[in-house]
Amino acid sequence: MAKLLECALNFSEGKREDVINAIAGAAQGVRVLDLNADKDHNRAVATFVGPPREIAEAAFRISAKAIELIDMNQHRGEHPRMGAVDVIPFVPLGEASMQEAIAAARQVGRRLGEELGIPVYLYEEAATRPERRNLADVRRGQYEGLPEKLADPQWKPDFGPNRPHPTAGATAVGARIYLVAYNVNLGTSEIDIAKAIARAVRARTGGLHNVKALGVMIEERNPSGSSPSGRSLAQVTMNVVDPFRTPLYRVLELVKIEAARYGVPIVGSEIVGLVPLSVILDTVRYYLQLEDFRDDQVLEARLWQEQ
Amino acid sequence: MAKLLECALNFSEGKREDVINAIAGAAQGVRVLDLNADKDHNRAVATFVGPPREIAEAAFRISAKAIELIDMNQHRGEHPRMGAVDVIPFVPLGEASMQEAIAAARQVGRRLGEELGIPVYLYEEAATRPERRNLADVRRGQYEGLPEKLADPQWKPDFGPNRPHPTAGATAVGARIYLVAYNVNLGTSEIDIAKAIARAVRARTGGLHNVKALGVMIEERNPSGSSPSGRSLAQVTMNVVDPFRTPLYRVLELVKIEAARYGVPIVGSEIVGLVPLSVILDTVRYYLQLEDFRDDQVLEARLWQEQ
Repeated sequence: MAKLLECALNFSEGKREDVINAIAGAAQGVRVLDLNADKDHNRAVATFVGPPREIAEAAFRISAKAIELIDMNQHRGEHPRMGAVDVIPFVPLGEASMQEAIAAARQVGRRLGEELGIPVYLYEEAATRPERRNLADVRRGQYEGLPEKLADPQWKPDFGPNRPHPTAGATAVGARIYLVAYNVNLGTSEIDIAKAIARAVRARTGGLHNVKALGVMIEERNPSGSSPSGRSLAQVTMNVVDPFRTPLYRVLELVKIEAARYGVPIVGSEIVGLVPLSVILDTVRYYLQLEDFRDDQVLEARLWQEQ
Repeated sequence: MAKLLECALNFSEGKREDVINAIAGAAQGVRVLDLNADKDHNRAVATFVGPPREIAEAAFRISAKAIELIDMNQHRGEHPRMGAVDVIPFVPLGEASMQEAIAAARQVGRRLGEELGIPVYLYEEAATRPERRNLADVRRGQYEGLPEKLADPQWKPDFGPNRPHPTAGATAVGARIYLVAYNVNLGTSEIDIAKAIARAVRARTGGLHNVKALGVMIEERNPSGSSPSGRSLAQVTMNVVDPFRTPLYRVLELVKIEAARYGVPIVGSEIVGLVPLSVILDTVRYYLQLEDFRDDQVLEARLWQEQ
């Protein structure tokens, strides 16, 4: 594969379809490969992949539109957030290096700060200080806590002013290795159970390496996933960093084990956005107990290799 | 996708690598996407995909080489067989129709009969009589039973002479919808258990629709799958016709249920040859309990679509 960056831009609108589409539409020439909006999180993720320069340009255009259309003073949602554009990660794929992803993050962060007046924090591999690597730490206090955070010298932004923007909050921009956003829906409406399971499975508090997890509430969907049925459901929402090393089946099976302690079943799960084929195949290999199954036994993979 | 045929040509050599490679190498311009040899079955499957005319040509060339190099009088193996080239199925993919697959089968069958003197039976969708549709019925009696079969007016071949070839046996050539060859290895060396499980899971004797199954013995492999460890293992070897309708997880789970009756675990399984992405994804959707996972959430699928 050529030098590619993936950008999974998270912005703080998950309910109004016209707004979501207008923001994603600002990508213009670059094709948004996946647009996933979550009403309960009141958040959406637009994923686009391409050469570094094009992807950085598209990230800026989409961000500018989100900043124009979203007023964070009105924003309520289940997922932690600090800005209209909440987080912009660049991920190297194919032959692109982490350095190229970091360069894209710095470039876009600088433009958001200097051209649009947004306070910007560089995080993960692009972080300027160790305490800014972790997104949860950067985002702590959320939108409402920004006046205090921006006044603190320890939290002087990497780009942009050290005072709040009137409507758009702050933005985290960074570079990181591939992660999969994976949510598991529990057969209970008790958020404390979801939080307990999240605590059990996240790396930092004693769970699986590479897993970040939170317990949240969502509106229950009908089995088709389309409309809410009126009840709330507890969810463990996770980021699995380096899913090539920590496979999805291991994450789900550990969530099941922890949920069993409460007599709570798994009623469904979702992978948000795009996922590499090898991650899917690691999970199939486990459940089917496959011996010697090669990635290129997938017919489409072989056909595409031939072109 | 364009008009494509897949051919999964089964020939009766699974042990001598030089012979296997010489036979597959006869494909010349057409790339063999997968070559899977099984020492216990003493059989190999060469899979190639492409436009109908090229695939029919390649099938004939590979067959001619197999007929040249394999002496069925010396052949022993765990899988039922009647010829050096045992079975040649053509499968329509993409925009190709079943009629085009049938036409390829007839063309190749005629050439094997008229140019190489091989008795040929057309089977499945290409069959000339209802009693020839089913491969198991066409192959019954195997190589050793051919003198008697070919003398029977009911079994006059569709092409070629009605007397045995000195070394190459007979060949079944046909057209069929997509199938996946799927084998499940049991933690026992009792073939009767494998046969009982096969009887329980195959459609014809009361199991899953679209499943054909046999119980066989194989040499146990080390976990890497490379070398035999010296013990025999029982295996349920299956063809899952229309895996888009009868998913692989359902097949495995039913085998597990039937094996449990004997206290026998599943120690591994294998998918032979190529498998379409959607078949893999149906199985992942089941085990991860995924809601709303689209085939095009697989990153490579989206990248390839963009080209």
